[in-house]
Amino acid sequence: MRFVSFRRPSGEPSFGRLDGDTVVELRSEGGPPDLKAALAAGALERLPDGARLPLAEVVLQPVVPNPGKILCVGLNYATHVKETGREQKDYPAIFTRWADTLVADGEPLVRPPETERFDYEGELAVVIGKGGRRIPAARALDHVAGYSVFQDGSVRDWQRHNIQFTPGKNFPRTGGFGPALVTPDEIGDLAATRIQTRVNGELVQDQPVSDMIWDVPAIIAYCSTFTELEPGDVIATGTPGGVGDKREPPLYLRDGDMVEVSAGAVGALRNRVIDEQ
Amino acid sequence: MRFVSFRRPSGEPSFGRLDGDTVVELRSEGGPPDLKAALAAGALERLPDGARLPLAEVVLQPVVPNPGKILCVGLNYATHVKETGREQKDYPAIFTRWADTLVADGEPLVRPPETERFDYEGELAVVIGKGGRRIPAARALDHVAGYSVFQDGSVRDWQRHNIQFTPGKNFPRTGGFGPALVTPDEIGDLAATRIQTRVNGELVQDQPVSDMIWDVPAIIAYCSTFTELEPGDVIATGTPGGVGDKREPPLYLRDGDMVEVSAGAVGALRNRVIDEQ
Repeated sequence: MRFVSFRRPSGEPSFGRLDGDTVVELRSEGGPPDLKAALAAGALERLPDGARLPLAEVVLQPVVPNPGKILCVGLNYATHVKETGREQKDYPAIFTRWADTLVADGEPLVRPPETERFDYEGELAVVIGKGGRRIPAARALDHVAGYSVFQDGSVRDWQRHNIQFTPGKNFPRTGGFGPALVTPDEIGDLAATRIQTRVNGELVQDQPVSDMIWDVPAIIAYCSTFTELEPGDVIATGTPGGVGDKREPPLYLRDGDMVEVSAGAVGALRNRVIDEQ
Repeated sequence: MRFVSFRRPSGEPSFGRLDGDTVVELRSEGGPPDLKAALAAGALERLPDGARLPLAEVVLQPVVPNPGKILCVGLNYATHVKETGREQKDYPAIFTRWADTLVADGEPLVRPPETERFDYEGELAVVIGKGGRRIPAARALDHVAGYSVFQDGSVRDWQRHNIQFTPGKNFPRTGGFGPALVTPDEIGDLAATRIQTRVNGELVQDQPVSDMIWDVPAIIAYCSTFTELEPGDVIATGTPGGVGDKREPPLYLRDGDMVEVSAGAVGALRNRVIDEQ
């Protein structure tokens, strides 16, 4: 199944299940108010169907608009470790984003005036369904509600102002998350799923999930050791090689550019870049 | 004035103003439900007095129990930059903590079983009163509600697993924040205020706020450039030299140790260390 968070034509936030080009609303009076609450209640797959709305008439929100924690894995594909010139370590690099840094499928990415080095990073996102601490890798997939597509947009100069990535990863509306939360049964072979990023149609990143240095169970085991994971938390699993900052010549995002990240059956996330006004 | 978040003897969360050893409750039916909401409403200093409770009968919470963002400045005292062997950069290092990593004054700090290298970092905390983006340094202090004391407790081995500090800074209940939000008029000369950390009474960190490489206005200007600051957001301004990990021999925190961080008129934050059960 595929779940989305959206705003009704009236502007009111809601969530539902995709049925082709229709959204079947799952928010109802007295029920969980949002997708995160539905995950926390363990109720997502058994909520009663509400109104049917044409997908074209709603405005998508980021899959989980209000996650408690957004964890991002850096340096999780050997090609990307190599292009950054960094050393491969024994543990993953983990940094964080705040929710206000993310836009939904179809919303514009905003390039701030502080940078000429606005860059894309296509990724697979994991959405936690069942919380936990010190989750063993062997049981980690039981804690996954599903997957989505993530664009870990980066303001490269601010990312390298000092040794921590926070500034370059947290300008508002510089990343993307969507379009839908896709349950694992829809995906087939996750390892074979290719993470592909296109800028104005040109393929710039293209690797299978199986190329990850730390796979999804290993990431969940590691992260849940140092922090409690809760329903609706998001883990962005890292980007393959091919980022714009390391190309010759570099490929930075400009006003009007179209960024598309696809991940096979998980879907495709499309965002146009606009300069901040 | 000094404001605290606390739980009533019944367990219910509340907030109030300190009057000596008494808490004057400021939460009331229909008013802001917590300190953050009171800051957001710009109402903190004019809420009507409620019940008077002996301080000894309430349980303090972290000053702001639910901040939207907690930003931490790394490497902000030359003595600490030097002891870490790192290079002084042109911009501050910024990393993040989640709220579940912090305990209140008087609560135990929890050493997880995953480390033998649990360390203290005494700091000055800034609490944002008025939000904003791209706040000029010259007007930054208008956005400060007040100050508090912060203990940016660190699990050093996990902090250095890779190049991002997140894992070592986010084990639950490893940091402290409190006891009170102290308005600037109570503090006198902030620059002359000494950040002092004691472990079992022994002074291990001791420097004035004036030794910061980036002062409070500079930090607010920098952080608000890449992220929107909102009322109740917290900025931990970095730790002086003298951390346990860089002493000879190293001084790591053990079950039963008492950690006290004081910052002159801003107050003192005391937490005993316990091993996680």
